[in-house]
Amino acid sequence: MADNAGRETIDTIRALAMDSVQKANAGHPGTAMALAPLAYLLYRDVLRHNPADPTWPGRDRFILSAGHACILQYSALHLAGYDVTLDDLKHFRQWGSRTPGHPEHGHTAGVETTTGPLGQGFSNGVGMAIAQRFLADRYNRPHHEIVDSWIYAICSDGDLMEGVTQESASIAGHLGLGRLVYVYDDNHITIDGSTTVSFTTEDKGKRFEAYGWHVQHVHDSEDLDALLGALAAAKAEEERPSLIVLRSHIAYPAPHAVDTSKAHGAPLGDDEVRATKEAMGFDPDATFVVSDEVREHMAVVRERGAEQQREWNERFAAWAEAFPQLSRERDLDLTGEPREGWREALPEFPAGEDVATRDAGRKVMQALKPFTPTMVGGAADLVESTKTEFEGAGLFSATHAGRNIAFGIREHAMGSIVNGIALDPAMLRPYGSTFLIFSDYMRPAVRLSAVMGLRNAWVWTHDSVGVGEDGPTHQPVEHHMALRAIPNLWYVRPGDANETAMAWRIVLEREGGPVALALTRQKLPTFDRTEVASAEGALRGAYTLWQRGDGEPEAIVIATGSEVHLALDGARALDANVRVVSMPCWELFEEQDAEYRESVLPAGVEARVSVEAGVTFGWERYARASIGIDRYGASAPYQTILEKLGLTVEAVSSALEAQLRSEAIR
Amino acid sequence: MADNAGRETIDTIRALAMDSVQKANAGHPGTAMALAPLAYLLYRDVLRHNPADPTWPGRDRFILSAGHACILQYSALHLAGYDVTLDDLKHFRQWGSRTPGHPEHGHTAGVETTTGPLGQGFSNGVGMAIAQRFLADRYNRPHHEIVDSWIYAICSDGDLMEGVTQESASIAGHLGLGRLVYVYDDNHITIDGSTTVSFTTEDKGKRFEAYGWHVQHVHDSEDLDALLGALAAAKAEEERPSLIVLRSHIAYPAPHAVDTSKAHGAPLGDDEVRATKEAMGFDPDATFVVSDEVREHMAVVRERGAEQQREWNERFAAWAEAFPQLSRERDLDLTGEPREGWREALPEFPAGEDVATRDAGRKVMQALKPFTPTMVGGAADLVESTKTEFEGAGLFSATHAGRNIAFGIREHAMGSIVNGIALDPAMLRPYGSTFLIFSDYMRPAVRLSAVMGLRNAWVWTHDSVGVGEDGPTHQPVEHHMALRAIPNLWYVRPGDANETAMAWRIVLEREGGPVALALTRQKLPTFDRTEVASAEGALRGAYTLWQRGDGEPEAIVIATGSEVHLALDGARALDANVRVVSMPCWELFEEQDAEYRESVLPAGVEARVSVEAGVTFGWERYARASIGIDRYGASAPYQTILEKLGLTVEAVSSALEAQLRSEAIR
Repeated sequence: MADNAGRETIDTIRALAMDSVQKANAGHPGTAMALAPLAYLLYRDVLRHNPADPTWPGRDRFILSAGHACILQYSALHLAGYDVTLDDLKHFRQWGSRTPGHPEHGHTAGVETTTGPLGQGFSNGVGMAIAQRFLADRYNRPHHEIVDSWIYAICSDGDLMEGVTQESASIAGHLGLGRLVYVYDDNHITIDGSTTVSFTTEDKGKRFEAYGWHVQHVHDSEDLDALLGALAAAKAEEERPSLIVLRSHIAYPAPHAVDTSKAHGAPLGDDEVRATKEAMGFDPDATFVVSDEVREHMAVVRERGAEQQREWNERFAAWAEAFPQLSRERDLDLTGEPREGWREALPEFPAGEDVATRDAGRKVMQALKPFTPTMVGGAADLVESTKTEFEGAGLFSATHAGRNIAFGIREHAMGSIVNGIALDPAMLRPYGSTFLIFSDYMRPAVRLSAVMGLRNAWVWTHDSVGVGEDGPTHQPVEHHMALRAIPNLWYVRPGDANETAMAWRIVLEREGGPVALALTRQKLPTFDRTEVASAEGALRGAYTLWQRGDGEPEAIVIATGSEVHLALDGARALDANVRVVSMPCWELFEEQDAEYRESVLPAGVEARVSVEAGVTFGWERYARASIGIDRYGASAPYQTILEKLGLTVEAVSSALEAQLRSEAIR
Repeated sequence: MADNAGRETIDTIRALAMDSVQKANAGHPGTAMALAPLAYLLYRDVLRHNPADPTWPGRDRFILSAGHACILQYSALHLAGYDVTLDDLKHFRQWGSRTPGHPEHGHTAGVETTTGPLGQGFSNGVGMAIAQRFLADRYNRPHHEIVDSWIYAICSDGDLMEGVTQESASIAGHLGLGRLVYVYDDNHITIDGSTTVSFTTEDKGKRFEAYGWHVQHVHDSEDLDALLGALAAAKAEEERPSLIVLRSHIAYPAPHAVDTSKAHGAPLGDDEVRATKEAMGFDPDATFVVSDEVREHMAVVRERGAEQQREWNERFAAWAEAFPQLSRERDLDLTGEPREGWREALPEFPAGEDVATRDAGRKVMQALKPFTPTMVGGAADLVESTKTEFEGAGLFSATHAGRNIAFGIREHAMGSIVNGIALDPAMLRPYGSTFLIFSDYMRPAVRLSAVMGLRNAWVWTHDSVGVGEDGPTHQPVEHHMALRAIPNLWYVRPGDANETAMAWRIVLEREGGPVALALTRQKLPTFDRTEVASAEGALRGAYTLWQRGDGEPEAIVIATGSEVHLALDGARALDANVRVVSMPCWELFEEQDAEYRESVLPAGVEARVSVEAGVTFGWERYARASIGIDRYGASAPYQTILEKLGLTVEAVSSALEAQLRSEAIR
């Protein structure tokens, strides 16, 4: 196949890619050129999509996991009729343009997720496939299917080498996610040269077969018939995810740059661009040219897309008429908000009981369950420990779309899959859970959830040396601060069971990004709220929990999480007008108006002590003295560790007394 | 095989494991019980080791990658005659004991690496095998082999699921590391229940074959003959790493706990322990018992170990006599220090030239090359960008032990492998390199290098929005602070080419832990050291680079890395006694004595501004006002980004002026 117009379109993608990279004097032309035939087929013939409505729910999803090759996608989006103009291509990689150096979700029409860090797009797609299956199960009825999209992706050597991909490939195989159609660009080239230096002996196809994938090989990326056949066979295989191993030649058909690692990440240079254009029969002196023939050839995409959407709209209307209650449910789901009454349903925990905040979290989740029917998620083989499960809501498996996903011991894939679930569509509110120490294993995905502003919950338990006997490899110390450092991530460390309920309110009420919860393994006292302030103060990030007297205090102790009760007891032991501030969420407190912030932490009161089971680094923002742990932990019962490391009531009292004395001297 | 004494020894390991966990009321008995036969065979018959000298270089290495099962190792170490006493077992998981909740390197005799975070031990072993091959190539001569150890490891389901393992398995296969003999404990159980919930469809053996491994199956962990045969065949296969898939039954032979996930991470309970002891023919009322028969049966280990070491010592003596020069080289290598004269050989960069610190780093490494013959390392497919290569020192491959390792696009495995190289033995000074943004991908390994105090270098380039066009997914902003938060990691961000030479001095001079370098992609001015202070000031972490006048300054601007020249120009533009402090390494500055710190940052000067291309979070420790980037970056030429985000000379001047004004008011 591929008539002349088709060939010219493919070469136009190549020319646009070369021109854009050349003009920006930065970018990755090679893969864009090599995969132009694939992008052409996907965007013109394979994907069900409507460029006029890029967020139409009935569309297929396309992910460029090899995000560095974004100029391929931008060029294809332009030719397919998306809102990406020639002018945008001319401003490739420039400030404020719609064509940044890697695809950014929410920034460019038709970009389903932010990619670039390798492996993330691949894994996001697995999340999208899980989301599709979950929603299909929720809405589809016999003869009424409104959720039936496929997920396509282009992956590179780097994607296949990254561990996150290997984890999520294993999950996708296990779950039999048959609607994944992934193409692996097997070009034998990485930045440091031929893949022979690091990736030779591995049989990638066999590896994916071992994961339970359906694997095909296409030996020539210019063979459109073979490619189209493989894509069709991949789509037809609905029991297993599909990988097409596509042998390509980077920078083809550039006469000298082809098959060189130089063509991966640098402009080809004017001479080579000219030579390539000549080889393609293009005017070597013209740039950013799209012929009328190509425009005409691609016009069909918008026409067919509109038709596909009309067809889907009809199906949808018939479905809505046949199942009016379900349709109303879907409308509610679309808001992304819990059902009304959810706040009132949150449990209140009685004073006097000792409750680990992970256990409080479990109760809160069960109370939320009927109100959050589109909240799905799970743990990295630690659900028995993190207690993050919607009990009775079933396990998500190859045969059942339950709300609880068993990610296995694969934290990084979990993070990236949860991002994919959140992306597609925004009606799902997913969460992922593990021990706080293992947030390190999933950090790149956590960062991307914050970059994209996804409404994920990250639930990390065993949040300090309070873990106890498992020792330093399992005891977070730097993590509170290392996570607070991530822009747009809210980090919430509730101080007792009732603050934990408020922490979940913060999760569900936040609009612009992810919220992480840090919960304890060990039991904590539940504060008597008749003696201290209401836990609703936590909704403002920090609040005065207790104060001995009125007016401006003489000193303030600020604590988070499991150290709040130490702060309270340490303050109460003193005969001074001392204030205790519980500060579960820095970021939220910093969003409050100046008046509120001043009311909690008056600028005039410099006698301040912080208490947190973690590094003291960073507490200078709020406190003059800090009680914390500037070392690694140890293996022992947790009470012993806290005592040995100086996280005690007595230490709080002493630190406050020292502050009061130094104020008296001033 | 396995006579009665052998069987009793195996069951004694089980009884000790049960007793220790029961007494601690915490721990993981199930795997220890199931794998007691394997541990028995390894420690008694297979490993070449001498319990009396646990660090003897000629020993085989054993890694318990499934670190949670440490009581298995502690029990075996005890019975084999290592310095782990019955009393140590009775203090399992207690403060200060030699038997912490996960194996800790440097803490317990016979523990080769700190494990627990899954996948790390597996990957450390790959590093150890690389180290062995490198040293074998360096020292061994025909008929004179002094480096000939094997690396054994026990891995769990969790190890095999983690991405870091999949990355390092791929590297091991690629490099044909035939001296790896790994046993995978295929027990069909994880914490959340049967592996069927998350790990069913995958053919683990086939996956490892795809990586290029030699794979065997042993269907019954009690079949000692089969196990021994497989271990021998694995050892005999020297071209490929070996995996033995061992079907085991967790908690065997406990009558009720066997094959249950409950037995993974909790004590069995007194009744079950008694029942198990009865089933094994042990006194159910006795705890921590080792019979004389067992002692006698295991006495052979110390005898054989001493004999093996004698034999090796003879070989070594013959080698040293035959190759006296090589022997002297090895003695020098053993110090872990560069050859004399290395400091003098460091390049000096002339003022006036603009040099990216990554390029300065490249020159420094070439200068160091002859002085650091045991420094090995590489990059995660970015050596062309990070410039971290010993030029002409060859590529480490299946057939050549060059000093440059191509890790592929596998940052996490790189980190963990580099840790393994550093561990075994300490004479190697390894490094790993990638973009700073991808330090997130390897963070768990970086943490462990700091936990273990390894002398690694982490070289991270492209260290800010100065990356430019690649955009927010490739621009670190929170990373400076997130890395400074890790205890015992030194993070060095040099301000020009000459500070980069000093940064490498910090790497090589530090004794107690890893040093990370953050280097620029973009060019920076090389300061004229006749106008500003010597770059040697960087060796104290922070130093006064320049000051307009004498005595105590009116205001101070503190900067790191690529922002130092902005600080200098911003300060020079003012007509006030302003000081510029370059602060490449917080941790090192904080190690200086109080007098020095006061001389650089006098407590009386509160008018201080920090400048760093990253989040301002954390700078409250040193500055009253901060210029930084509290958001994600953007795709554009870097000069535009810096301008748009306010990292300019003018911004520095303005901030200093504001500080001077506010001081004037006070």
